[in-house]
This record gives sequence, C-alpha cells and structure tokens, in this order.
Amino acid sequence: MKGRVHYDVLIVGAGIIGLSAAYHIKQNNPDLSVLVLDRNAAAAQGETAKSVAAVRDCFTSEVNRLLAKSTIEFYKHLQFESHFNLGLELVGYLWLLTEFEFRRFNAFMKRMQEQGVRLHIWEREDLADLIPDLVLTPRSEESKLLGLESIHMGVQGLNCGTVSPDMVAKYYETEFGRLGGEFQYRTEVKSLYLASKDPLGLPGEPFAWQEKVIRGVETERGMFSADRMVLATGALTPRLLDPLGIDCLVKPKKRQVFRIRAGDVLQRLLHTKGFNELDTIPLTILPRGGVHFRPVRGEKSLWIAAADDVGRPLQYEEEPAAEESFFNYSIYPILSEYFPCFKDQRPANAWAGHYDMNTLDGTPIIEEVANCMFIVGMSGSGIMKADAIGRVVAAAFNRREWATLFDGSRLMVSRLGLRDRAVGKEEFVL
Amino acid sequence: MKGRVHYDVLIVGAGIIGLSAAYHIKQNNPDLSVLVLDRNAAAAQGETAKSVAAVRDCFTSEVNRLLAKSTIEFYKHLQFESHFNLGLELVGYLWLLTEFEFRRFNAFMKRMQEQGVRLHIWEREDLADLIPDLVLTPRSEESKLLGLESIHMGVQGLNCGTVSPDMVAKYYETEFGRLGGEFQYRTEVKSLYLASKDPLGLPGEPFAWQEKVIRGVETERGMFSADRMVLATGALTPRLLDPLGIDCLVKPKKRQVFRIRAGDVLQRLLHTKGFNELDTIPLTILPRGGVHFRPVRGEKSLWIAAADDVGRPLQYEEEPAAEESFFNYSIYPILSEYFPCFKDQRPANAWAGHYDMNTLDGTPIIEEVANCMFIVGMSGSGIMKADAIGRVVAAAFNRREWATLFDGSRLMVSRLGLRDRAVGKEEFVL
Repeated sequence: MKGRVHYDVLIVGAGIIGLSAAYHIKQNNPDLSVLVLDRNAAAAQGETAKSVAAVRDCFTSEVNRLLAKSTIEFYKHLQFESHFNLGLELVGYLWLLTEFEFRRFNAFMKRMQEQGVRLHIWEREDLADLIPDLVLTPRSEESKLLGLESIHMGVQGLNCGTVSPDMVAKYYETEFGRLGGEFQYRTEVKSLYLASKDPLGLPGEPFAWQEKVIRGVETERGMFSADRMVLATGALTPRLLDPLGIDCLVKPKKRQVFRIRAGDVLQRLLHTKGFNELDTIPLTILPRGGVHFRPVRGEKSLWIAAADDVGRPLQYEEEPAAEESFFNYSIYPILSEYFPCFKDQRPANAWAGHYDMNTLDGTPIIEEVANCMFIVGMSGSGIMKADAIGRVVAAAFNRREWATLFDGSRLMVSRLGLRDRAVGKEEFVL
Repeated sequence: MKGRVHYDVLIVGAGIIGLSAAYHIKQNNPDLSVLVLDRNAAAAQGETAKSVAAVRDCFTSEVNRLLAKSTIEFYKHLQFESHFNLGLELVGYLWLLTEFEFRRFNAFMKRMQEQGVRLHIWEREDLADLIPDLVLTPRSEESKLLGLESIHMGVQGLNCGTVSPDMVAKYYETEFGRLGGEFQYRTEVKSLYLASKDPLGLPGEPFAWQEKVIRGVETERGMFSADRMVLATGALTPRLLDPLGIDCLVKPKKRQVFRIRAGDVLQRLLHTKGFNELDTIPLTILPRGGVHFRPVRGEKSLWIAAADDVGRPLQYEEEPAAEESFFNYSIYPILSEYFPCFKDQRPANAWAGHYDMNTLDGTPIIEEVANCMFIVGMSGSGIMKADAIGRVVAAAFNRREWATLFDGSRLMVSRLGLRDRAVGKEEFVL
C-alpha cells in the first residue's frame, strides 16, 4: 500500500467510466491529487473488458444521443487525426426489422434524422442482394414454431461501429497518468465511510439529524479518504450505496457474449460488402429476442449476444459465466434461422458481465449525495458515451451548470441528476 | 389449503393496499373469482399494522394530492355519513418551520392552496400562546451543540388527521368478503411462476425470445395460479420481482415508532386546545431530523417517529425491531429541546416496519409487466391514499385510460405507470 492515504479526489472504479471521469476531473483541476482505486490488477479489467464494445449515435433519448455523438466524434478525432489507435471501425449498426417493428421504428427514425443522426434505409431486395447468407423469410418448421416473422426493411446507423475497449481505456489511463493522476490496484472497497459533516466526537455518530458526508472508503489495505468522492463502480454501486440508504436506482443485469470463429462457412458473412468501407457486415440486430452480432475482423470472428429482459434476474454474480444453454436455446434457434451460415457453429469461447441497468429511462445518472458523486445507469452503453460522461462529471465536479462536450454541444448537468432529472426514456437498449 | 387453486385474479398481500385493490377490482368485476393471499394470520398484520396511520392532503405532487384528497374524503364519508368507524380524527398536521424552511415551504404552500389544500398559518406568537410546552427558541448548551434553530412559523394542514389502520383495513376486508372475495392466510409466497405466453412444451422454457407471463405463485402450500396477478407486497416486492428481471424501482427502508404514555407531564400537550375540534395537539413535525409525533387520544399516548434518510440502509429486515439507540440519540435530543415536557420520558413500547420507498419521486407506482400488476412506492403514505389507489388499480385492471376517484376527480392511469410516468417529484416525505 502506498504511504499516502488521503487525496483531494478519490475515484472508485478504473473501468472506462472511472478512467474518463478521472482524466477530465484531473484535466480541469490539475492541482488536485486524484487517486483511482480498483479491485482488479489493472485498468478496464471489470465490466469494460466484457463489453461487446460497439458505439452508435442512434438513440431515441436526446441526452443519450448527445453523449454518444460527441464521444464517437472524439474517438474518430483520436484515431483518424491524432493517430491514437482505438481499434475504431465504423462498420455501422444494422437493424433488421419486421413490418411491425419498422412502423414503430419509423417515428423514432424521423426524429433521429432531424437531430442529425445519419441513417440509411435498406429495402428488402437490397438486403437480399448484399447479404446472401440472410434468410429474409424463414420458412422451416422450426421457424414456424418460433413464430419468426419476415424481415421487411433494414435500417443502418452509419456513424456507428466498434472499438477495442482496452485501447480506449489505455488512452484515458495514459493521459490521466501523464497529468499526475495516481492508481491503486488490487484494492477492493469493502464499504464507504459515512461521517457527520460537523462531528461532535460522540460515540454512535452520525445521528439521524446530522448532515452526513462520505469521507472515504474502507478496503482490505486500510482506509483511503478524500475531500471529494466519485463512484464509477457500475453494477456494484447499489452494493456500496444501499447500506448507506442512498438509492442509485440501477440494478445489475447479466449479459453474455459468445464468440464464434469465422471459419470457411462464416467467411463470406464477415466479408460482406456494400455496408461500409471496411467490407464487413455491420453490427447486426435480428428482429427477435434482441439477438445481435458484431464482426471482429482482427480476430476473424463474430461476437454474438442477446438481450434477455423479463426472466433474467436483476442480481450481481460474483463470477459471472456465460451459459451454454442460453446460447443453445435463446440465441442459436433465432440466429440459425435468419442466418443458416451459423448452423452447427459452436462458440469457441464466451464470457459474461453485468450491465448497470437503469430500467426507468435507460440513460446515465450523474448525481451527488453526501459529498459522493455516483455515475451509473450506463445500461450497456458506457463505452460509447464515456468521453462525454467524463466531461459532464468534470462539470458537475466543478459545480458548473453546463457541460461542453468534445463536439461543442452543451448539456445542462442537472438533467442527468436524480433531483431534476430531465432525460427522455430510451427506447433502444440492446 | 382450500381445494381450489386457480382463480381469475390473485392478489398477493392483504395489507391496506391489497385490500383496497381487491375490493375495487371485485366490485368492478363481480363475476371474477378473486383471491387475496397473505403470509400473516389475518389481514393488515404486516407493514399496515406498523404505520403511524396519519392522513394528509398536503403533498407537493399533484398526483399524491389527488390520491390523498379523495381517500380522505372517502374516509370522512364512511365515518361521518355511513357511520362506519375508522378511528378518523381530523387533528391536523402541524409543521413547525425555521425561517429558512418556511421560505422553502412557501412556494409549495401557494401551489397547494391554489389546488384547494386548506392550510392555516400560525405566527410565532400564536404557537407560543397555544402550545405552552413548546420552546420556540432553544437556548440550552445542548441545543447549541445540536445547532437547533428558532421556530419561525407554523403551517397547519387542516384536512389531515389520523386513523386506525385496523379499522380502515376491516372496512375493505368486510366489503370484499361480502362481494364473495376469498382470503388465504398463513401462506407465504416463495416465488412467482414465470411461463411462456405460448408454451412449446420444451424443457428450459421460457427462453429469452419468448413472450412471458406470470401465471401464479409458489407457496409452501403449493401453487396458486390465476389469469391475472396483482402484487400488493410493498417493501417485499423487489424480492419477488428482481429474480424475474422486473424492476419495480422501490427499495425497503426501515421506519420505527416509539410510543410514550401521556402521564401527568404530557397530559397538557395531549390536550392542547385551539388547533382542532378534538382539543388535541396535531400531528406535529419538528424542524430537524424529521422528528414528528401524533396524538393517540384513545390510548392516552403519543407516537413518535423520525425520518432517517442517508445512513439508514435500504434493506429488508426479517424481524425489524425498534432501536433504543435510535430513540435516545436521533429523536430524544431534538424532541426534548423543543418540547421539554418529553424530558426523561421513555417509550413504553416501540415497533418497526418498512416503507416501500420510491426515492425517485415519492409517488405510487402502478404498473403491469408480464401479466402481473404491481402496486408499490407508497413511500410511507399508503393508508392515506389507499382508497384512490384501489380505484386506479381497478381502472388499470379493466384497461381503462382514466380512473374516477371517490371525490369525482379523474386521473389518467398511465401517469402512475413506469412506461409513461408523469408525476411530479414529491417534496414532503416524512
């Protein structure tokens, strides 16, 4: 353990959100000592490492759109102008929609386009031409049993793609370190230390009538205290805040990723042309069960996931593992009917992590209670909003009313808080 | 166990909310078989029995005001016109406010008065005259240590008072039974039974891509199934819904009540004149720590409680007990400085229960997911909204867009849901 145990600012969690917050806070306050604490052995080894790591600016909520759009612009700037490789590939997001879904999507689509989101509509025939591996109208007995409907249209988000979470994390980690920010790894926070703001020195403090502040954290390596606290602990946040009576409003939800190697059969899919300059299939969302896959060209594979909503417990698993049965029964039947090229393909490996789900509106929460900021509610879209989130957190930290994002757009900080929350409900959570 | 295990409607929880919901649903649907299930041996033995059982129409949120106002009108109608005794005593709510708090209160007050809430402002001098036991400006060493401020004004909610929770529960229980509603007591729900809406008969169902419905409950006495489910399980609701991945957004918060017998010293306070026709002290809220007390004339005592926010865990205790230390250190110092008549008075007994806290907006939630309605978020004000809640639930049950309350006011049902929630944030949660 390092000798120093008091810092001006203590940030718990070295995931992508904690790193971006740390960097932007330090950048705005170079004279403050800032420590990032994490239970893992290095940065971005928790949920960040488990992510599908896709980025998109197609959100129905204005706040999500602003956060994602600016973050993507920043990533593009880093990679294409500053030549800092983030593994960014603008492959696009392709929603395959039934007629019913297209009608629902349509209203959102218009609004998104008005806000500058670039979308391309693919007719059924285009899809048939471009993706020979796609079955637009499944007709097998199995697909009747599943009730699979015909794909009516495709909608592609153009300013969307994938990144390498490690490389994005590396950027913030390096820059934060360059500014003099410090890290303390392998240090798990056991509890937050709640104290009276004006202690009387009596046993049993803090009492109910006293104003309270969180002064630091208890860890196995002792206590770390700070003048200001920031929790970037994602799905673990309720475990830290519930015992103090602070409701951060998110709950953990397990999500799984299955990786299939693109052997001979899947090569053609991986090298689909016509959707992007990289000549690969976009991240593709099937019209059922939230099943989706992204290409990972570098490792010649496809990562597959599904959104299970009702039926998947809202709970944190200490050692989350991907479930073979989930792939077999909840993903494979849908996937292999629309894309028969996946028939008999098995995952080479798989992993699982947790969303910090905000079921209320699917939009991030940046709030401060008892001297402790918490940044939660990424609902699976943390990496694609991380830069903007960091800037809003820094603005909130410095008590500024407005945050200015990388792309110049401005966001009223209080909109993301719980007290005066003013965000739309997000309709697109995968 | 009764022979019949399938009902048209199954309502879990025979607290005041479950009873009112059961009555109004049955009343609107007399031909449906309706079962109310509860783990206790009789109705209203859970959190309802632990309540301070006060009723008020002073809320900052319009929805809360509508719900409470109509419920109070209904209780007045029952007691004063139908002569069904609910133990209703319109003693009023008296907020004792510092100058700072009065300024904050003032904005809300104006809005409430415009909406028909009857308030009376008491000047400092009035308070001094009417309550000789009240110290308006505590000057002791102790009070300086506590930082207690001077009371600047009093605001009395006139259409407010107290009820007997047993008697209110008895009304709905009796009327529901009269309509042919059934009860099953001593039956604890272990889990909800989630099934596919269109089962395929395969092992492992429901799968992620299947539409899901809650078909019933598993109990130690076997399974009870129903076409429609209603959860009125208050603070226990997350325990039932989290495992199914359904977020009801409330968390349990322990609240305690301490009962002090009004012996010689407290007699005068109990018999304070000038505030109501009953010549008793209103339910009185002190300007610190959420400390408040209500008169219980029938048992010649005062019930005392406090709102502990940050510092009190958001968790459910299986056997919640009142804590002596909480009374001694978080209530007594404040109480005995403003009301020295409480000096050296000890609780004769005490008890504790749980709020089903909705920290987001402090307003009830009536939502349906997977064929299961849940009614939560009373945040400590269930009894005072129970009748209106029952009517909104019945309207939601029958898929009506609007609910008509007892007093004729109308409320759009979807406003209380989570999907299109449109309620103001409640500023007055005790």
